[in-house]
Amino acid sequence: MSGAPQPDIDLAASLFDALGRATRRGRGRGIVRDSYGAGEQAAHDLMRQAAGALGLEVSVDAIGNLYLTLPGRDRGAARIIIGSHLDSVPQGGNFDGAAGVVAGLAVLSGLRRAAITPPCDLSVMGIRGEESAWFDVAYLGSHGAFGLLDPACLSIRRSDDGPTLEAALKSNGFDPEPIRTRRPLLDRRTIRAYLELHIEQGPTLVERALPAAVVSGVRGCKRFRNARCTGEYAHSGAVERRYRHDAVAATVAFLHHMEKVWLEQEDAGADLVVTSGELNTDAALHGPSRIAGETRFVLDLRSLSQPTMDDVAVEARAAAARIGGKYRVDIDLGATSDSPAAVLHPGLRVALLDLLEQPFEMPSGAGHDAAVFSKVGVPSAMIFVRNTNGSHNPEEAMALEDFAVGARALLRLLLEFPF
Amino acid sequence: MSGAPQPDIDLAASLFDALGRATRRGRGRGIVRDSYGAGEQAAHDLMRQAAGALGLEVSVDAIGNLYLTLPGRDRGAARIIIGSHLDSVPQGGNFDGAAGVVAGLAVLSGLRRAAITPPCDLSVMGIRGEESAWFDVAYLGSHGAFGLLDPACLSIRRSDDGPTLEAALKSNGFDPEPIRTRRPLLDRRTIRAYLELHIEQGPTLVERALPAAVVSGVRGCKRFRNARCTGEYAHSGAVERRYRHDAVAATVAFLHHMEKVWLEQEDAGADLVVTSGELNTDAALHGPSRIAGETRFVLDLRSLSQPTMDDVAVEARAAAARIGGKYRVDIDLGATSDSPAAVLHPGLRVALLDLLEQPFEMPSGAGHDAAVFSKVGVPSAMIFVRNTNGSHNPEEAMALEDFAVGARALLRLLLEFPF
Repeated sequence: MSGAPQPDIDLAASLFDALGRATRRGRGRGIVRDSYGAGEQAAHDLMRQAAGALGLEVSVDAIGNLYLTLPGRDRGAARIIIGSHLDSVPQGGNFDGAAGVVAGLAVLSGLRRAAITPPCDLSVMGIRGEESAWFDVAYLGSHGAFGLLDPACLSIRRSDDGPTLEAALKSNGFDPEPIRTRRPLLDRRTIRAYLELHIEQGPTLVERALPAAVVSGVRGCKRFRNARCTGEYAHSGAVERRYRHDAVAATVAFLHHMEKVWLEQEDAGADLVVTSGELNTDAALHGPSRIAGETRFVLDLRSLSQPTMDDVAVEARAAAARIGGKYRVDIDLGATSDSPAAVLHPGLRVALLDLLEQPFEMPSGAGHDAAVFSKVGVPSAMIFVRNTNGSHNPEEAMALEDFAVGARALLRLLLEFPF
Repeated sequence: MSGAPQPDIDLAASLFDALGRATRRGRGRGIVRDSYGAGEQAAHDLMRQAAGALGLEVSVDAIGNLYLTLPGRDRGAARIIIGSHLDSVPQGGNFDGAAGVVAGLAVLSGLRRAAITPPCDLSVMGIRGEESAWFDVAYLGSHGAFGLLDPACLSIRRSDDGPTLEAALKSNGFDPEPIRTRRPLLDRRTIRAYLELHIEQGPTLVERALPAAVVSGVRGCKRFRNARCTGEYAHSGAVERRYRHDAVAATVAFLHHMEKVWLEQEDAGADLVVTSGELNTDAALHGPSRIAGETRFVLDLRSLSQPTMDDVAVEARAAAARIGGKYRVDIDLGATSDSPAAVLHPGLRVALLDLLEQPFEMPSGAGHDAAVFSKVGVPSAMIFVRNTNGSHNPEEAMALEDFAVGARALLRLLLEFPF
């Protein structure tokens, strides 16, 4: 055994196994770790249990974020947080989110085994509710930890017609009060750095045959979650074009236009992705021989540039009005839920790049809690680990060897941190 | 009271009321007369009951079509059928189909009251399963009556995951054998004419302020009922355009292309309507932050011209392959269910036009059983009655005064028929 401390990959392997066993379910045999639900809680319980075995200090804040702490020599010094989220999308995969928490525990276990006491506290943070698939709020747990949630979010209902956020908090023994009063639970001045390991959610590292990368920045998101097109149901054969109020035809024209906008932005060199991942006629009212009188859909805009997102959102609203008029329907995009873009800490990025055998830096197209820590002024960095088959699906596949590359970089960053 | 016999509009009014009371249900308070289900049967029961009160002969064929007959002077002569269907789409309206059967009874009641015995039998036919929303078969009842169904249709399942057609037939006491052996239940040589009154399903008569019209022809239909686009689920923010397999983007591009094809056909003077009335991502797997890996949709083509439908269907398949390739997805349009276009009988059309105070002729965009009778060589004609709000929805609205205009024309045609 080499003298240099190594992350505890055996612990990581057993935690991934246990997480999969505890939270894989349903038709697609996907992972279901519902925010503030039984699945997410099962993941929190497993992490607490592992932390107990390692002799870490365990605490939970008022809204359920979990902190597993290896005490440092100076307990009063600003600490370093190694975190990620423990929830998943419905029918998601085993690694999105959990890999960052498991990496933190593997690193702390490595330090423990090497009998190293760090200069400051090192806390692994298991963050609540990052996946807004359950409650339509961006970065629920980390925003809540910094007192940044709009109190109105407490009345948002779980997307599967489950409880409101307030009811979900209470039924888990947590306290909605800090959200209602915007009270921060974390003081950014007491946090020296935030480090997050996450699987890459796109195919870039697979395509480039690299095990890991440093993340340059996190794309923001502007999402029309509840867009709706209202026309009139009618017989498909019996109504000429000029009398139609066809919700599908109008929605198709609108979404096709937004793809054109995307292409124009790309041609102009802007960073942007445009996605409609949910699009539905009403199964109770539609029919193969009916013109559809309604669609509901989602439009999701992401960019490293806030002005780009803002411009495209303005164009989307203008196009909805214009195309709605042309098709004699109402296209109501509804409110957006927004998460800002974030640039990660230049010094930490350079330090991490130096620790990779094959240094590579790339932007993150998806949002991450690191964006919130960065926004409040905590120096933040992220490591991506190669992952086959994308994320947010049951087939997420991260090799433990690649995970170990990322975890080793994390551990060495902590050891070499300019304390 | 005038000496000329009149259709019994009071009877019609009470039958429409009874039909609405018996079959209006569900969230939208729409009409549910499910083919070979409880709703359709309730309508058949009401019509039988009315026929009994009028002293008509009642019979039911092996697959459940209902015949209510006023005997003529020459029982051996070819009869005239006045028919339409008694099923409805899910959450449909009270008049689509039923109006034609009720009109037949109103006419026969008028003849009874005037003590007129017609030269030949006059049969009101309540046809089964015209709305392929339940079983994906065009003109189930009338095709079945002429032995024209593909026996494979017996294993088609009701679209709401109900029973197969064979099981539905049996559970209603009917016999699948004539369908299995393609045995006709009606001999076209014994039918002198087929007459059908139906509400107009588009806005033309409303726009033109006309109570009724004669129908020139019935548009055929070529329908891709089970079209499906298969891509790959992935995170919406994390996958660049060139790596995506976005089922929604591809479906939108395909449907938008089909709208362009429609416009080109219109510009070239062709008769055509193109509709996608069902379009869905998979609620169990989609998400606001996922690229959709699957859509399912319907594409419905209708025209008075079979070559136009054939050409557009060929172009649809070519476009599906081309656009599927471009978007790295598979667009599988699946099989079509077809119903041919039909030209109605020139002599009957002229005779009916002469009977309208405001003569007006128009094509039918929707399919009707009259197309089947016409196809097998029975001289067939149709009358449209003005109807507000379109059809196939709970808001169908036909004024009794307009219905009476159509029913009077029917009755006078029978009286003046060149017997």
